[in-house]
Amino acid sequence: MKIDLSKILTDGKAFYLAYDQGMEHGPIEFNDENVNPERIIEIARKGKYNGLIVGKGIAEKYNDEIVKSKVPLILKLNGKTNLYDGEPMSEQLCTVEEALQLGACAVGYTIYIGSEFEDKMLKEFENIERGAHNLGIPVIAWIYPRGKSVDGKPEGKLMAYATRVALEIGADIVKIKYDEIPRDLEWAVKSAGKCKVVVAGGAKIDESEFLEQIRIVMASGASGVAVGRNIWQNESPEKISKKIREIVFS
Amino acid sequence: MKIDLSKILTDGKAFYLAYDQGMEHGPIEFNDENVNPERIIEIARKGKYNGLIVGKGIAEKYNDEIVKSKVPLILKLNGKTNLYDGEPMSEQLCTVEEALQLGACAVGYTIYIGSEFEDKMLKEFENIERGAHNLGIPVIAWIYPRGKSVDGKPEGKLMAYATRVALEIGADIVKIKYDEIPRDLEWAVKSAGKCKVVVAGGAKIDESEFLEQIRIVMASGASGVAVGRNIWQNESPEKISKKIREIVFS
Amino acid sequence: MKIDLSKILTDGKAFYLAYDQGMEHGPIEFNDENVNPERIIEIARKGKYNGLIVGKGIAEKYNDEIVKSKVPLILKLNGKTNLYDGEPMSEQLCTVEEALQLGACAVGYTIYIGSEFEDKMLKEFENIERGAHNLGIPVIAWIYPRGKSVDGKPEGKLMAYATRVALEIGADIVKIKYDEIPRDLEWAVKSAGKCKVVVAGGAKIDESEFLEQIRIVMASGASGVAVGRNIWQNESPEKISKKIREIVFS
Amino acid sequence: MKIDLSKILTDGKAFYLAYDQGMEHGPIEFNDENVNPERIIEIARKGKYNGLIVGKGIAEKYNDEIVKSKVPLILKLNGKTNLYDGEPMSEQLCTVEEALQLGACAVGYTIYIGSEFEDKMLKEFENIERGAHNLGIPVIAWIYPRGKSVDGKPEGKLMAYATRVALEIGADIVKIKYDEIPRDLEWAVKSAGKCKVVVAGGAKIDESEFLEQIRIVMASGASGVAVGRNIWQNESPEKISKKIREIVFS
Amino acid sequence: MKIDLSKILTDGKAFYLAYDQGMEHGPIEFNDENVNPERIIEIARKGKYNGLIVGKGIAEKYNDEIVKSKVPLILKLNGKTNLYDGEPMSEQLCTVEEALQLGACAVGYTIYIGSEFEDKMLKEFENIERGAHNLGIPVIAWIYPRGKSVDGKPEGKLMAYATRVALEIGADIVKIKYDEIPRDLEWAVKSAGKCKVVVAGGAKIDESEFLEQIRIVMASGASGVAVGRNIWQNESPEKISKKIREIVFS
Repeated sequence: MKIDLSKILTDGKAFYLAYDQGMEHGPIEFNDENVNPERIIEIARKGKYNGLIVGKGIAEKYNDEIVKSKVPLILKLNGKTNLYDGEPMSEQLCTVEEALQLGACAVGYTIYIGSEFEDKMLKEFENIERGAHNLGIPVIAWIYPRGKSVDGKPEGKLMAYATRVALEIGADIVKIKYDEIPRDLEWAVKSAGKCKVVVAGGAKIDESEFLEQIRIVMASGASGVAVGRNIWQNESPEKISKKIREIVFS
Repeated sequence: MKIDLSKILTDGKAFYLAYDQGMEHGPIEFNDENVNPERIIEIARKGKYNGLIVGKGIAEKYNDEIVKSKVPLILKLNGKTNLYDGEPMSEQLCTVEEALQLGACAVGYTIYIGSEFEDKMLKEFENIERGAHNLGIPVIAWIYPRGKSVDGKPEGKLMAYATRVALEIGADIVKIKYDEIPRDLEWAVKSAGKCKVVVAGGAKIDESEFLEQIRIVMASGASGVAVGRNIWQNESPEKISKKIREIVFS
Repeated sequence: MKIDLSKILTDGKAFYLAYDQGMEHGPIEFNDENVNPERIIEIARKGKYNGLIVGKGIAEKYNDEIVKSKVPLILKLNGKTNLYDGEPMSEQLCTVEEALQLGACAVGYTIYIGSEFEDKMLKEFENIERGAHNLGIPVIAWIYPRGKSVDGKPEGKLMAYATRVALEIGADIVKIKYDEIPRDLEWAVKSAGKCKVVVAGGAKIDESEFLEQIRIVMASGASGVAVGRNIWQNESPEKISKKIREIVFS
Repeated sequence: MKIDLSKILTDGKAFYLAYDQGMEHGPIEFNDENVNPERIIEIARKGKYNGLIVGKGIAEKYNDEIVKSKVPLILKLNGKTNLYDGEPMSEQLCTVEEALQLGACAVGYTIYIGSEFEDKMLKEFENIERGAHNLGIPVIAWIYPRGKSVDGKPEGKLMAYATRVALEIGADIVKIKYDEIPRDLEWAVKSAGKCKVVVAGGAKIDESEFLEQIRIVMASGASGVAVGRNIWQNESPEKISKKIREIVFS
Repeated sequence: MKIDLSKILTDGKAFYLAYDQGMEHGPIEFNDENVNPERIIEIARKGKYNGLIVGKGIAEKYNDEIVKSKVPLILKLNGKTNLYDGEPMSEQLCTVEEALQLGACAVGYTIYIGSEFEDKMLKEFENIERGAHNLGIPVIAWIYPRGKSVDGKPEGKLMAYATRVALEIGADIVKIKYDEIPRDLEWAVKSAGKCKVVVAGGAKIDESEFLEQIRIVMASGASGVAVGRNIWQNESPEKISKKIREIVFS
C-alpha cells in the first residue's frame, strides 16, 4: 500500500512544531508561558505549522484545543526521561490505534541506534510500522545514534547511517540531528533514498544563525524541519515561525 | 473519552487515606491497632476521606468492610517490598478489571523515574491507562525519582519533572513527594498542566508542622493530599483527620 | 468471591505433609524408604493429614495412589533446584487448570521476597491467584526472604514482613519459616490479618523439641503446620504424626 | 491421562541411537561417512534400535528415509551450539505439533540444572510436557547439571538430583550421564521413582569397556541406553549395535 | 511439506545480489551511484541474477521497480547496525506474511552462533522457518560465528559448524563466509547434507582473484554465491556479473 503523506507535507515540505521536551528533558526547558500546552497549540496554529508533535498525555488532555487548531497531529509514540544514565531505551507508550482515535495524521518513534537496546527499539518500530501502514498512516522515525558504543564516532557518518537505517526499516520520514556540515547532510539525504528527511532544531541558538541553518537544511535536499525550543523560547514565537515558514516553503 | 473524576474528588479536592505501607515498608510501620485494616477503614469512614488507597489483597479480604464504609476505593495496582537494594521495579499485581470487580473508583500505579527499569514501568502504566480510560476509570500515577542515576540531583527539579511526566503519559492525577520548598511545588503544579497534583504525607512528623505543610500544599494550587502514617500513627486519628479536612476543603 | 477453605482446613486448622524436597534440595533428604512417593502417601493417609503438598510430576505419576488415600492434594506450582547460587527465582511449572485436573484442592507458590527476581515471582503469583480465585480454589503463598539484599536483616522483622506481603497480594494462607521467637510469630500472625498462617517444619530436629515448637506455633494464633522431614525422617512417621495432630487439633 | 510408552520401549527397554551431536558439538564428531544422516538412519534400521533421536532439520529433510526405516522417531526439541562459553541455555526449536506432523513417537528436551537459566528451561519443559501429555505423547528430559554454580559438586549426588528433578517435573523418561559408579546409578534410578532412566553413551571409548558399562547400566535398574558416538564412530556400527542390543534386551 | 526451491535456484544454482549493507555497515559502502536502490535493481535485472536480497524498507519503497525487474525477491527479515559493540543480536524486522505480500520468493534470517544471544536468534529463526514452510516458502539462514566466545577459534571448523547448524534447524539454504581454504569448504558443504550452501562475496577484492574464488566455491559442491560489494563497487557491474554468471552456471 502506498502511504499518502499529503496530510503532513505541504508541497512536499515539512514544517513541524515539536513539544515532547517536557518528557525528554523535563520542564527545565519551559517558562511560565510555554509550560502550558495551550500556548504551544496557539503558536502552532498561528505559525501555520503542518505538524504538531506531542505525546499521548497532551494529545488526550488537550484534544479539544488541538482539534480546534486544525494543525495536523503527529503522535510521538515512545518516550523516556533523561534521568537514567545507562544505555538509552525508549518504550512505546501509545498504540497506533489510540493515536488514530486521538486524531493523529502520523505517528513517530525514536530509535537510539548503537544502544545496547537498539534491537528492542528496531523491533518495536517494526510492529508500529506494520500496524500503521496497514491503516495507511505515515510513520516518522527519530533516529539518534546514542550509547557508549557510539561515543567518539564521526557525526557525519552517523547522520548518514541514521537516514539509511530509516530507509531500510521502512520509515516514511526520518528525523535527524544536523551535524552542521552541509556536505554531510546532502549525503545523508541521498542515503535516505525515497525516505524523506526532516531536521531537528535542537537547543536554542541565535536567531539569525538559526535561520541560516534552516536555509542550509532546505538547500541540502531535506524535506523540512521539526523545530521547538528555537520557537517557543524565542521572544516572539509567531514572528520567527513566519520567517522559517518562508524559508521552508520558498 | 473525558474521564469523570467526580467520584474521587469533592469540589475538585482530594483527601485520601493511603494504606499500602505494609507492602512497601513492612509492618514495621504499624502497631497492634493500626496493623488491622478494619481500624484503618474505620478511620477513613469517620474522617470522611474521599479515597482509601489499598492493594488487591486488602481490597479482597476486607471488601465487605470497605463497601460498608462507603469510602471510595482507590486500588494501587503495583507494589514491591523494600528488601531488594538494587534498581527499583514495581510490578503490576492486579488488573484494571479486577479492580473494577472489587469496586474501585480509580486505580493507581507507581513509576520510579530514573530507575534502570523506568521503561518497563512506563510501559506497564501505559497499558493500565489505556485499559482504565477505555472503561472510564481515572488513573493516578505515583511518580518518584529513584535509583542510582538520580542520586544527588536537585529535588525541586525532580518534583516538577515527575508531574510533567504524569501529564505527558496521560495520568489524571499525579501523587508526588513534596520537597518542602513552596515555590518548587507551585512550579510542579504548573508543569502538570491539566493533570491534578496530590501530595504524599510521608513519614510521621510533628502535628502542627504537618498541618502547616498541608496549608502550603493547598496554597500551591495542588488538588489535595494522600496521607497515611501522620494519621493512623497519630494518637487521635479522627481528630487530625478533621483538621486536615478543614484545610483541604477550606 | 469468598474462597472456601474447608477442604484444606479442619476446624480452621492446617496439618499438612510437605514432599517437595526432592526438587528443592535433591534426594539427599531421602533414604531407601522415603525416596518412594508411595511411602509418603501412606504416611499422609495413616497420619490423617488434611493436605499433601507435592509438585506436578508426583501428582501425575502417583495420582491413583493420592486419590485412593483421600488426603487433599495441595499442588505446589513452582520449584527450582538448590544448585544455582545466584539470586533465587522459582518458575511456575504447573498451571492452575492442570492442578485442578489432577484433583488439587489448593495450589501453592513460593515467592523469595528480597531477591532480584521478587518482581517476577510477585507477578506470577498474581496471575495464579487471579486464575485460582476465579475457579474458587484457595492459594497458599510460601514467602521466604532470600537473596543478597536480605542477608543480615533481622529474622523477626522479615517473618512479619512475609506474612504482611501475603495479605497484601491476596494469599489465603501463607507458609513461613519460624525464627523460634514466640513473640515474633505472634506479631507475624497479627500482621497477616485475615490471611491464615502456616508454619514450615524445617530440617529434622530432636522430637521433643519439635513437638514443643508445634505447641508454640499453635499458641501464637497460627492456623497450623506443614511438616516433612521431621515426619518421614523420623523412625516412626505414623507415631509422630499422631502426636503433632493432637497438638494442632487440641 | 496415562502416557503409553510402548512405541518407544520394547519389553520396557530403551535402545536409542542419538544423532544430535552435529548441533551440540559441531561436525567435528563426524567423518565422511557418518556426517551423512542417511548412513545413520541405515545403522538405526539395521541395528534394530527402538528410537532414533534427531532435531527438526534432519527430521524434515530426511523424513522419507526415517519413515521408510520404521525406526521410531524421537524428536529432540531444543538445541544449542557449544560455542558460547557463558551459562548454558538451550531454546526450544520445534513445537510438539510439528514433531507429531513429522511422525515423532516421543519428544525430548534438555535442561541444564544449576545454570543461571535453569528456570527458563524448566518453564519451557513444563509447556512442552503439558502439550505433549495432552496429545498422549511421551516426554524425555535430558537433565545435565551444568554451569558455574555446579562446578566441583559431587557427580553422584548430581546424577540422583537429575533423575529426581525429572520425576518431579513430570518427565516419562530421563536421560542422564553416568558417573561410572554403579551404586550412584542405582540410587539415581531409585530417586526417579516411576520415571524411567536412560543412560547416555558419551564420547567414544574402548569397545569392551563400553559393553561392560552397558551391562552395569542395565544391572542398575535403568531402562536402557541412548548411544551415538560409540556406535557410528565404531568401525563396524552394525556389529556393536547387535552386541549392545543383546545386553539391553537380555 | 516439500519446499520448492525452483523460484530461487536455476538448474540448482544460486546467483544472488545482496543489498543489505546499508543497514549492516552503513552507507559507507556506497557511492553516489550505488547508494540508490534503483541502480542496484537495474544491475540485478541486467546481470540476470536469480535473487535480489533486501530488507523490508527497500522492498516496500522500491516495490514497483523490483516487480518490474522480474528478479526474484529474497527478503532479509532481520538486521542491525554495526554500531553497538557488545554481543551481536539481530532482531526480526519483517514478518513472513509481509514478505509474501511484498512478493518475496524466499526469506532470510541471520544467526550469530556463539553470541550470548544465539538462543534468541535460533528461537526466532525457528518461528520463521515454521511459518514460512507452512506457506511453502524457502528459508535461507545466514550463519555467522560471532561474539567474544568465538574469538580465536579455527575458522574452518566454524564454517562447517555453521552449515551443520543450518541443516539441523531446518534451513533450506545456508549462506556462509568462505575462509579461503577449499578443503574446509568441501567439508562444510558435506556437513550441510541436504541443505544447500551459498557463499557470501565479502568485501571488495581484485577482480581476477574474486573470479578465481567463485570457481573454487562452485568446485566445492556449493550451490552458488550471494555477491554484493564486488559487483556494485566494480566499475562495470554488468560485465563482472556476466563473468560470475558464466562460472556459476557452467
